[in-house]
Order: sequence, then structure tokens, then C-alpha cells
Amino acid sequence: MSSSSAPVSPSPVRSYAHPEWRAGPAGLMLGCWLARLGIKARIVDQRARKITRGHADGVQCRTIEIFQSFGMAERIQKEGNELAETVFYNPDKSGNLVPTSRIPDTEPNTSRFRHVVLNQGRIEDFLIDCMGTDGLTVERGVYPVSLECSDSTTASHPIAVTLAHLAPPAKEGSTEDPASGLYRSNVISNADPSVAQVAKTEEIRAKYVMGCDGARSWTRRQLGFLLEGDSANIYWGVMDARPITDLPDIRVKVVLHSADAGSLLIVPRERNLVRFYIQMGTLQPGEKLDPSTQSPEKIIDSARKILAPYTLECPEVEWWSVYEIGQRICKDVSFKNRVFLAGDAFHTHSPKAGQGMNVSMMDSYNLGWKIAACVKGIASPVILDTYGAERVEVARELIEFDHQIASLFSGKPAVTPESEGISMEEFQALWVRMGKWTSGTAVRYGPSLIVAESAMEKTALARNVIIGSHFESQMVVCYADAHATQLADRLVSDGRWRLIAHALPSSPIKKYTPSTADLNSVIEVLTLTSSPRRALPYPAFPELARPLVGRFRYPTYDQIFSDEPSYLDGGGHAYAAYGVDPDGPGCVVLVRPDQYVAEVIGFEGCVENLAGFFDRFMIHV
Amino acid sequence: MSSSSAPVSPSPVRSYAHPEWRAGPAGLMLGCWLARLGIKARIVDQRARKITRGHADGVQCRTIEIFQSFGMAERIQKEGNELAETVFYNPDKSGNLVPTSRIPDTEPNTSRFRHVVLNQGRIEDFLIDCMGTDGLTVERGVYPVSLECSDSTTASHPIAVTLAHLAPPAKEGSTEDPASGLYRSNVISNADPSVAQVAKTEEIRAKYVMGCDGARSWTRRQLGFLLEGDSANIYWGVMDARPITDLPDIRVKVVLHSADAGSLLIVPRERNLVRFYIQMGTLQPGEKLDPSTQSPEKIIDSARKILAPYTLECPEVEWWSVYEIGQRICKDVSFKNRVFLAGDAFHTHSPKAGQGMNVSMMDSYNLGWKIAACVKGIASPVILDTYGAERVEVARELIEFDHQIASLFSGKPAVTPESEGISMEEFQALWVRMGKWTSGTAVRYGPSLIVAESAMEKTALARNVIIGSHFESQMVVCYADAHATQLADRLVSDGRWRLIAHALPSSPIKKYTPSTADLNSVIEVLTLTSSPRRALPYPAFPELARPLVGRFRYPTYDQIFSDEPSYLDGGGHAYAAYGVDPDGPGCVVLVRPDQYVAEVIGFEGCVENLAGFFDRFMIHV
Repeated sequence: MSSSSAPVSPSPVRSYAHPEWRAGPAGLMLGCWLARLGIKARIVDQRARKITRGHADGVQCRTIEIFQSFGMAERIQKEGNELAETVFYNPDKSGNLVPTSRIPDTEPNTSRFRHVVLNQGRIEDFLIDCMGTDGLTVERGVYPVSLECSDSTTASHPIAVTLAHLAPPAKEGSTEDPASGLYRSNVISNADPSVAQVAKTEEIRAKYVMGCDGARSWTRRQLGFLLEGDSANIYWGVMDARPITDLPDIRVKVVLHSADAGSLLIVPRERNLVRFYIQMGTLQPGEKLDPSTQSPEKIIDSARKILAPYTLECPEVEWWSVYEIGQRICKDVSFKNRVFLAGDAFHTHSPKAGQGMNVSMMDSYNLGWKIAACVKGIASPVILDTYGAERVEVARELIEFDHQIASLFSGKPAVTPESEGISMEEFQALWVRMGKWTSGTAVRYGPSLIVAESAMEKTALARNVIIGSHFESQMVVCYADAHATQLADRLVSDGRWRLIAHALPSSPIKKYTPSTADLNSVIEVLTLTSSPRRALPYPAFPELARPLVGRFRYPTYDQIFSDEPSYLDGGGHAYAAYGVDPDGPGCVVLVRPDQYVAEVIGFEGCVENLAGFFDRFMIHV
Repeated sequence: MSSSSAPVSPSPVRSYAHPEWRAGPAGLMLGCWLARLGIKARIVDQRARKITRGHADGVQCRTIEIFQSFGMAERIQKEGNELAETVFYNPDKSGNLVPTSRIPDTEPNTSRFRHVVLNQGRIEDFLIDCMGTDGLTVERGVYPVSLECSDSTTASHPIAVTLAHLAPPAKEGSTEDPASGLYRSNVISNADPSVAQVAKTEEIRAKYVMGCDGARSWTRRQLGFLLEGDSANIYWGVMDARPITDLPDIRVKVVLHSADAGSLLIVPRERNLVRFYIQMGTLQPGEKLDPSTQSPEKIIDSARKILAPYTLECPEVEWWSVYEIGQRICKDVSFKNRVFLAGDAFHTHSPKAGQGMNVSMMDSYNLGWKIAACVKGIASPVILDTYGAERVEVARELIEFDHQIASLFSGKPAVTPESEGISMEEFQALWVRMGKWTSGTAVRYGPSLIVAESAMEKTALARNVIIGSHFESQMVVCYADAHATQLADRLVSDGRWRLIAHALPSSPIKKYTPSTADLNSVIEVLTLTSSPRRALPYPAFPELARPLVGRFRYPTYDQIFSDEPSYLDGGGHAYAAYGVDPDGPGCVVLVRPDQYVAEVIGFEGCVENLAGFFDRFMIHV
């Protein structure tokens, strides 16, 4: 074993179930990336089975865009419930609850997708299926008991991990039953861990390890990193139920402040379920609740008081829990660029804005392609520095947002402008203002090795393309087949960089592409012309725009698009939307494998500028 | 055994494989209906395995609407290739091939779906999966060897069928290999049937039998019914290949007449395949081709001559065949309303307009719900008379259309208006004119027990709703959840009749609904208001519009819609599109379980009029 500077697990092998070492959305998203890109990986999960009910349920627009890039967005859209409207209920001057305003749940032009709600277990199913297509599965009943990372800079596999294999499948205690309402609740004291027999241990060597192991992250503790932050000492109940109520708006999202009885959030779900978040009461600092005092009846009772005079019956409660509001963050997320944290392992917050599962998946989505490029020898490991720089900033914004929204949500409303309490106008304005942020589409990464500095001359080329933001989709028409196509649907998660050429391209692509590989295998050029499809015959395009690929050298037909109206689906506004002058000199937008805009450059000096950008981290082949 | 007037199979049990007794699209569609409606059914198929390549590939708009009603349209949309454009290539005055016009392949406003192409084998997979969800599977290696239908009017199961079970799976001869290009070709003489061992025979009694057993239908022969018609003595080649060509329009549909070398149709397909239909040569009446003289090279060679000067290479040919153009129809499609024919068993024609698979599935889609209603005792068997009346008329139109288009397609073009030959303008005009018909959306069933007569006073109520046509979709907004909803998406294939009430409904529905069943279990009321969602509180609607259902009497939230613009998806034009005056008296559109409009009535006397309609065939419960 190599020498190690990382803390070592204090008790190497114990018959102890780590409750949080499980394959959740962050880990599975990483698995999708690595499997898709052909990287040898293992995903271990201490649990014998996955969750099936409850937990996170919001799937944000940007998350669906990513799912689309893996070819599985339509599964979410089919099974999930799209949220069409949000209604605010507030007390009127007499204290009676009334709907005060209605807004679309997804603001127009946020994304080509909509905010959807669907059980976390199904999201995990889709990720597991996606990984499985590429040959990667979750190993259940397996968890790490030690982790050592060598100081060696030359070792190809500097990390030693000891894995314990449980057998038979862990017998789960009452609060360890994923179907139980109190499984993973942060206001319940830890029950005795289930006792399971370790059948064997296994030593493995890894190039990289990512701990996607939740708020009580074992990996984080091994690294000695700390979650910092505080809790608000307010606890809420959460419940998935099929309600019978005379509240007219039970099938849209309802954000409700009662005059005196607390607040409540209603999120209509798939299969006629409704997710309720219900303000319950306060806690003393450090206080944990006795599980035997919590019940769905107690939660329903609180909901009835808040909703009065509207009625509420819940003949079927599918899942319920209680949780404390708090925001915590870990500022260190990587160790030697070899061991990384993602998801709840480095940021925890309240669930009501539906951010947790989404931000967590975006963490590992940010890292996966970078690790793959390093393992494959395409890129230098220096790009791994950008993981922490990019994602800790997002987590900070999340914590700040959550703190604001949570305190306004839990506060007592001011019934009149003069009375004390939270201004409902202010609260609603914040909610609307944060819509783009909660959709996940407002994320903008700062300058780094893989994101160029913004500069005036770039902005002039493509006024609305923001370097560091994701490349936004526009409807364009495929030259060869006349299909109306969302341009971002072509930004599939396959590890390739893309050049989106506004005009006819020339390029230094060959430099980074093995001579035996297809010309579009590392960097793909998508050409978007401002002239209509009939203006140029297909063979007039240079080979770079329609490379010959595969054993038989077939021409490609899906890399050239026209900014014109399609027959049936609109389009024809892309140049205007990107702010590119169709009569100007044209430009090239460089898009990362995760769809973030890395650079915008003009055709003048394009080859040299691109070479300059890539030479900083790409490895010549 | 009962006495029989139906012909009996001349040789009761032979070790003989009936090449056409197989579970194709028509039979599987029937299976979907019967399985979904809980009817006990068996589907037998002589073959040990299903086809995987080639054969029919066009999926018309109306067919996708039906797939949507079974919840599987998105599988076709995802895997298939949507045809966006059709280009006509004709010789110019010098005889050189040039594109002369471009049109959208699906005319705007034809349907909410588009014409798609996808291998017949995948369509069958989707149908098999759909049936399987409801517990019905295909029994392979099983085929009928005798069929007798009793004259008894009281027997509940008047049909006796003897089934042979093959074992081991039939060993297939060369032309019996579904992967072979000449499998099922109508210009190849029958090869010796494969010899397979019959392991056992089985006698079964059935209420109904449907022969969906292809152009050489065994069932049809048992009934002594004849296919009538003729062939054009012209044979064509068909091929699925990945081409390399400098024809610029290889990824859109190309309808091409060369000056002297014949005609060709190009249909771009999924997985970069292209389907080619290529005019090959003429036959003597009754002439059959020697299989050894046919080959993909010969077909490619003919294509090259037609396409010249454009080049064509086909490194990969996935499937190919040759066929003779002909149109044949059987005017009798049912025997005693107990034994029925569907699909190629009663109509055959050329494949180029992509009608065969679609019309065949529509045959059994027309019959399935009727048989189910009879078996369940909801409706009188007199409704089965409408099967032949409705579908033979459609088949006649198909034959007539196909005859016209095929002769214009195979004819030599007139290069100038003065020269001899087919006028390309006339041909193109016919092609466009027939677009709505080929989409499957132009079908209109005549008056019958289950389609009311049209009359002036009905037309005035809903000017654009055509009695006998399918109910066209409009985007509306769901009252309870603000979802933009295609109204026809609510017309799911579950055997229910639907009343689409333009205003608030009252109804005689209880009369036909068992008192123990939910109020919407036989007839579902969908209410479409012209007032916006915010105008009426949800509880203001009568229970009929939002019945309480299930064990817990949950209110329904998906039966009331508003004709207003949605937040993000348009809408607000439904009353105008249906021709209903929002300030008028309102009306009720009665829609059959297969989505065809049965009747339009005003609210005045609505209850009596509906009762009068249903009393003709519905059985009181």
C-alpha cells in the first residue's frame, strides 16, 4: 500500500451499516457519464434495495435538459406531473385564506422543457437503466470501510479502498426501512444501526473516488472535511397522499400562508398523489424528536389547521416524514483532485424549492466528463480544479437562496401592509425572481482553463450567448432532412466538445483527433446557416461540416442546420436569439461536453484562437 | 360438434406450415383491444418467430392517434423517422433529373401527429408489449386446421376450431426465412412448404374468430370467399439500405420519374436506412419469377439507371424483395357475424403509399371494441353488421386510390406538356390531394346503428364536427391543473363512449351504467367550457362532470376543460375549430370508443335523444 496523507477509517472493518452510503441521484448521474464514455467504474451501495417512495420529487428544467442529452428525458415527461401553475393563497384583511395571484410554474422561455415532479425512486430507476445500457450496474450490500490516497504523483491508481461485502442482504431496522416515514429524517435521533454480517472484504485500487454519500457522508468524514452552517430550529412535515378536499386548487402548486397557523406548500404529483409540506413547530437547538411522537395523523392535523376553513381528508398516505430546516455547506470538495464530494455530502438545505436532487446531479454531471477526459488521456488533470471552483459557488448560491426563501416561508404573514410580519408581496416577488435560478438555467461558471474570459469583442459577435452559461436551445431546421430540431438536442452527452459555427467553418480539429478516428469523434462541428435550406446544395458544404464516418465512410447528415421556419414547428429565430448578425462576419461558439459555453470567437484567427484555448489542457494526439 | 354450414378444412391435420397464418399488425391490434378490455382471447401464429426487418414501414397520422389512445405513440415517435418533406424529381426539357417542387410530407392541420416511418417488426413489438401489459401473448408454432361455425343462434360459443401445435419450432425453408428478401414476395412461386411435425392438436370453442392471416388467408379460403381484382403486370424492387450518393435529397422523401429508365421512391428511415422502391420491369400475365434471378445487385442496378447521373452505392443492404403491383379486394368480410377477415386477408394493393399496415390495423381497431361490447353484454350483436359496412368501403377507396397512384407512378413522364406520357403536374396534384386520405384522417363512416344521420340542425350546433369522422383534437386547458391538453388524448381506448359537452352537462348516463360502477365507467363526460378557468370555481360543476370514483370516492380532476390559451402551449381555439357558438345553446358530441363521432345533439331534449340513440343497441343494466 502506498503512504497516505488522507485520514484512514478508524475501524477498518465492522459489521456496521453506513446509512448514507447509497447510490442516490448524484452517484448514479456520475455512473451514467462514466458508463457512456466507456470508463471502468464501480458504484457501491450499502443497501440491499433502493428507495421506492417519497424523498425528493422536483425535477427542474435544466435537469431535464441533461436527461435529454442522455436520451431519457421523455421518461420523466411521460411519468411525471408537469407543474403548470403556481397559486399563492394568503389571508385577506379578515384573515380568510384567498388566492391572491396565479403564475405559470415555468416562466416562458426558461427552457424547452418544463418543471416536472416525480418520485426520486423513479428518477433513480431511469439513471440505473441508462447506466445499464452501457454495462454499469449498482453493487448493493457493498460499502467502503477504508480509504487511503497516496501522495505519489506517478501512481496511476493512487487510491486504495477497502470494500466490505454484506451477506445476506442487510436486515433493516425500523427507521432504516426506506418505506418508513422517518427513514433519513434529520430530526430523528439515529436508531441503532442494523447489524449485518460482513461476508468478505476486498481491496481495490482506483484512479478517482467520488463520495456521493449524502448529508452524513462517510467519505467527507474520512477526508476530515466539515459541513458548516446552521439550522432554523423549525420543523416541517412532508407527506405524499391522495387528498379529498374542497380547496379548488389541489391540482396546481399552492404556496400558502395562513394568518396564524403556519405555512404550507402543495405540489400535485403523478398518480393523483399530492406532496404536502406542512409547518409543524419549533425545536430547541440540538433537540431531536422522539419517533414515537410523530405520525401522519399529526401532520394531517397541522395541515387542517393551516388550510381551514378548507377541508382535508387523506384516505391514503403513501409516504411521510418530518425534517428540520437548515443550510450547511462544505467548502472543500476535492482532495488532491483524486477524491471528490458531490450532492448532499457537501451541501444540505430545505427541500421546498425542489433543488436538492437537481443540484446534486448537476455536481456529478459537472465532474463526470472531466474525469473521463483525464482517464482517457485526452485532457490534463488540471481541469479537475474547475470542479470545486464551479460547484462550490453554485452550492453557496443555493444555500443563500434557501435561507431567504425558508425564512420568508416559515414567517407569519403581515395581513395588512401596516401590520407586523412577512410582506406577502415581497415573498411572491422573491419567488418569481428566483424562478430562473430554481429552474437550474441561471448557473454561470466563472472564467477558468475551460471557460474563457468574456470580452467586448466576443459579446459583439454573439450578443446573447453568455460565456460560462449553458448553450440555450433554438428551433432550427436540419439541412438534409428538413426536420425541425431543437439545436440543443444535438448536444448529447457523449464527451465531445462542439463548435457551433454561425457560417461555414474551418478548424484546427484534426490536431486533437487521432488520425485513425472519425473527424467528429473528439470535436463535432454543428453548422448553422442564416441562408435557407434551398440556397445551398448539400454537397457544397466542406467535409468538416459533413464528415465521412465509419467503416464505409458514410456522409453525415445531422450536422448542418438552417435558421429558417420549419414546415410545422416554427423556427427561424436562432440568429436573432443568439444575437448573431446574419450579415456579419459570423462566429464560432465553443461548447463543453456538459453544454456550457466555453468561448465565442470570430472566424478571423479562429484556428489559432481555438488552438490557444485547447492547448491549455488538451493533450495532442 | 354442432352442425356447420361453413366449409371445413379439406385435410384436417397435416404436417404443413401455412405460410400466412401469422400474428401481423391487424391481429395484434385486435389483441390490444381485447386484452385491454379484459376479453379472453387467443392469438395463434404458425411461425416460431416474428419478422425483424423490412416489410411495411409507413405509419400514418391516424394510426399514431390510435397508438396514442393505447399509450404507445411515443415509442413510434422516438424510434421512427418523421418524414418532414417530399420532393418531386422529374426530367427537365433536356431529360435531366431536377427537383421540381417541395411540400411538407404531413400537411399542416392534418393531425396532432406526423407521418413516421419505422420497420413493421418494431410496430409489432409495440403491439405485443401493449397486449402483454394486459396479459395476452402470441402463441407461436400454433395454427388452425379446421373451422366450423354452428347455425345455432343460442350457442354461446358456436365456433369450433382445431389448432395444431408444432414441435419443435418449424424448420424454415430458404424462402420461408423472414430475413430473406423473397419471404412473402408475391412474384415468387411458392417454395415447398416447410415440413414440421405436429406435436398435438387441440379443439377449442370460440364466440368469435378473426382471420388476420394475410393475402393468402387460410380463413378466407375456409369461408369460400374470393379476392377479386387484377395485377398490372409490372414488378418493382424494394430495398432497405444505407446508401452513399450525391443525390442531395437522400434524407427526405423523393418521388422520382426518370425520362426513360422508370420510377423510384425514396423514403428515409430510422438508423440511417433508406427504403427504396424501384421500378424493375414487366411480367407476363400469371408469370412468376425464378428466385435465383433476383438479387439486391439487380435492384441497385435498376436504381442507378433511374437515378443517373446521380451516383448510388449501397455498402449495406439490410433487406430487399420484389413484388408485383396489383389491387384485390374481398367484398365479404364476415360470416354470420361470428368469423371475420381483416387486413390483407380482404384487401391487397401496392405498398408505396404506405397504406397496407395502417388500413389493416384500422380494420381490427374498428372491430375490437364492438366484439368486446357484445361479449360483455353491453351491446347487442347487431352492431357487428357495421364492421363490414364501414371497412369494405374504406378498402374500396384504398384500392381505387392505389390503382390511380400506381399507374401514374409506373408510367413514363411527359417531358413537355405536348409530349406523350404522364403529366407530372397531374401526378403531383393527385399526390397532394390524396394527402389527407393517405394520412388516414379522411375516413368517414356512413350512417348506421352507431352513426347517426347528419342533419341541418346538428350541423348548425357544431359546424365543423362531421358525424362519422373521427373527433379531431384541439388544445384545451384542464380546469383543475392548468395543463395544456390535446382533447383527443383523453379519448383513450378503454371501451368507453364519451360525451363531449360544450357547456354544462346533464345526461341519461346512469341508465347504461351498473349501479355498483363508477358513474364514468361506461360513458365518460368531458366538459369543455368557453369561459376561462378562473370564471367558475371547481366545486360549482355538477357531479356528472367530476364524478366521485373508486373505493375512497375521490373526485376526478381530468374531465373538465376550458377553451382558453394555456400559459405555454397555445389553445383557446377549440369552440371556433369545432364550429360551436360560445354564446349559443351549447351541444353534446357523442364519440364512439374508437373516437368516431356518432352523434351531435343539442341540450334541448338531450337526455331523450341520447336514450333514443343508445336504446337501439345498448343493453340496459
